[in-house]
Amino acid sequence: MKNNAIVGQSGGPTSVINSSLAGVFESAINRGVDEVYGMINGIQGLLDRKYINMSDYIVEEIDIELLKRTPASFLGSCRYKLPNIDENETVFSKIFEILDELDIGYFFYIGGNDSMDTTMKLSAYGEKIGSPIRFIGVPKTIDNDLAITDHTPGYGSAAKFIASVTKEIILDGRAYDLKNATIVEVMGRNAGWLTGAAALSIGSDCEGPDLIFLPEYSINIDEFIEKSIKILERKPLVVVVSEGLKIEDGRYVSELASDISITDAFGHKMLTGTARYLAETLMRRMKCKARSIELSTIQRCASHMVSRVDITEAYQVGGAAVKAALEGETAKVIILKRESSDPYICTAGIVDVGEIANIEKKVPLNWINSTKDFVTSDFIRYASPLVQSELTPFMVSGLPQHISLNSRGYRPDAK
Amino acid sequence: MKNNAIVGQSGGPTSVINSSLAGVFESAINRGVDEVYGMINGIQGLLDRKYINMSDYIVEEIDIELLKRTPASFLGSCRYKLPNIDENETVFSKIFEILDELDIGYFFYIGGNDSMDTTMKLSAYGEKIGSPIRFIGVPKTIDNDLAITDHTPGYGSAAKFIASVTKEIILDGRAYDLKNATIVEVMGRNAGWLTGAAALSIGSDCEGPDLIFLPEYSINIDEFIEKSIKILERKPLVVVVSEGLKIEDGRYVSELASDISITDAFGHKMLTGTARYLAETLMRRMKCKARSIELSTIQRCASHMVSRVDITEAYQVGGAAVKAALEGETAKVIILKRESSDPYICTAGIVDVGEIANIEKKVPLNWINSTKDFVTSDFIRYASPLVQSELTPFMVSGLPQHISLNSRGYRPDAK
Repeated sequence: MKNNAIVGQSGGPTSVINSSLAGVFESAINRGVDEVYGMINGIQGLLDRKYINMSDYIVEEIDIELLKRTPASFLGSCRYKLPNIDENETVFSKIFEILDELDIGYFFYIGGNDSMDTTMKLSAYGEKIGSPIRFIGVPKTIDNDLAITDHTPGYGSAAKFIASVTKEIILDGRAYDLKNATIVEVMGRNAGWLTGAAALSIGSDCEGPDLIFLPEYSINIDEFIEKSIKILERKPLVVVVSEGLKIEDGRYVSELASDISITDAFGHKMLTGTARYLAETLMRRMKCKARSIELSTIQRCASHMVSRVDITEAYQVGGAAVKAALEGETAKVIILKRESSDPYICTAGIVDVGEIANIEKKVPLNWINSTKDFVTSDFIRYASPLVQSELTPFMVSGLPQHISLNSRGYRPDAK
Repeated sequence: MKNNAIVGQSGGPTSVINSSLAGVFESAINRGVDEVYGMINGIQGLLDRKYINMSDYIVEEIDIELLKRTPASFLGSCRYKLPNIDENETVFSKIFEILDELDIGYFFYIGGNDSMDTTMKLSAYGEKIGSPIRFIGVPKTIDNDLAITDHTPGYGSAAKFIASVTKEIILDGRAYDLKNATIVEVMGRNAGWLTGAAALSIGSDCEGPDLIFLPEYSINIDEFIEKSIKILERKPLVVVVSEGLKIEDGRYVSELASDISITDAFGHKMLTGTARYLAETLMRRMKCKARSIELSTIQRCASHMVSRVDITEAYQVGGAAVKAALEGETAKVIILKRESSDPYICTAGIVDVGEIANIEKKVPLNWINSTKDFVTSDFIRYASPLVQSELTPFMVSGLPQHISLNSRGYRPDAK
């Protein structure tokens, strides 16, 4: 049996994806795997033979702790989608050729939906050609939209940051004794998990936002204005909206602002602008001060404010993936199974990758209130345990310290 | 001698303005002042007889610590500018009437330039009518644009947040092996202190942003594009810009985007959109992915990430103001005097309010490099001591805990 492992990261960065990487690396070494390679920029980089030996860069014990506390993808990420096997077998045979060169017995892929698709296709091809390599997916995405798993690593920390800054933004909006509105835009194109997390700001010291609009329902702009007017009669308004919010005819709110019909280099419509459009509409119709705040990529990379629960689980699913692979599993994904919410107890489980890949999990509609402008207490009970406790950054010269391949001497052209 | 004090907060919120309020309150009580009143929404609220007795709301010792850790203005703020005394004496006589009703002997006003103007005018009027009330200004502003004082409380924490998220954003931008650009927009309409703080992200683990454009110099869009193209040939681009950046003809960059010629309810031109315009221009001309991130109000209210140096100094200038007033000073402002940068030693001083009010301190031009696209090491040596060390939030249910008048039962109509 070939006894090396390779691990890759794929999809959007999170604050804790490197904690899963640390979990894979440390577990693999501790369990007797010989070498642990890291794909540079995921499967796409691997196709160009871009990889490192993790042990060259993660040397001391403190490196593991720094890795856990470093946001975004230590190894670099990609958004590469593998073709279907019958469409282009060459890609697959090339990947397996490289894996064989490296004596890979275990393949770990940390990512969201697309990454699970990659894991599924690679294991299917492996089975087809009789390869002994074991393929395990490790879930991560701030969007929390993976099926079957109770939640995804990455979600809790993003939710914690969103809820924390929502509290701060609410106080900021109250500073002036004026009619003023703040519209906060949160990530999550189709699923409102992150947007709903703003409701976690509710507590004895904070009344929470006034309205929360998830992408699970469309918004009626006139109704939004009416609700806003009523609230603004008595207090500053704070609204939290998903970047993927649509109006009834199916268009994105962000499409309504003329200037942002720009598509990016890949032809994707840029969704940013939802909060801006709503704020400008409010300002025009109400003559009140209205500000939009996009949490933008900060919400996925604010590792200075991670959930201890989340970062620990991210580490654990990495370890669980290694354990599963070494015990003979393949074509599987590690999931999180909630045993109890109060007290919060969660364990790792494992399912066939086909059960998860390419399925998007939205917020249950009965966790959104009847007026479609807030989440219910069920949502809060679900999300609250995921933001608990902290893992303090290592502060050096007043700033969070990280570890990166660049700072450790990696040069892309060296390999 | 009348032995009550009153304190107000004015201008934009900061993460540590309440630490100054805590300093004033605690020092006043400890030094034998009978009652400490707080103006609701500054001098504007006082004119409507809106005030509280601080002791009704800050009751236990932990309340002081919560107050320090609460962003924005605990008492509420205002942007009210007093008229000149000879223009409208009625306003002044009304204020002094209210102060006399409350047996005020000491008046403290925490704020930036406009607030120092208020302090100056009130003390001048007091002198004119022979009032014994002593007026002391307490400096605060994230913008760091007050004259004479080495720096202003509020700046260090905003700078720390900006530098920290700049590090995180740089890592996020590196996740994909693609040509991509990120333009980060920072507050500071005329002075580049906050924008320059992004350079503090430079360290052994981070190369810092590629370009920093302060409002002290105008920008040439074509040169900006040229520089960006060169950088994008070898790495993802991260640029930090001031919201107040102008092009050579004097127009704000934010004015160049068609959609944001909107003025707010007060007729102020909204400056937001500088980063967005630059990102969209890059995207159009270079066909690369470009994202804009506005740090927006988060940079002034992110009390989950304060500088210990800053929050301590904010507390100290509050105490120093009380000490000065009780020792007979009036028409003065507390300042910070840097004795040494390495090791950092800073003490409180005091100057005539007239020396500070209405003077805007910009970044010295020799602290900006010759290509006008970064700050020099002198800037970094100046700013670095101000972001050192942390004061941990009190985390309750996974989120930073605050104290607010609302949560303590204050109702605006109760008085």
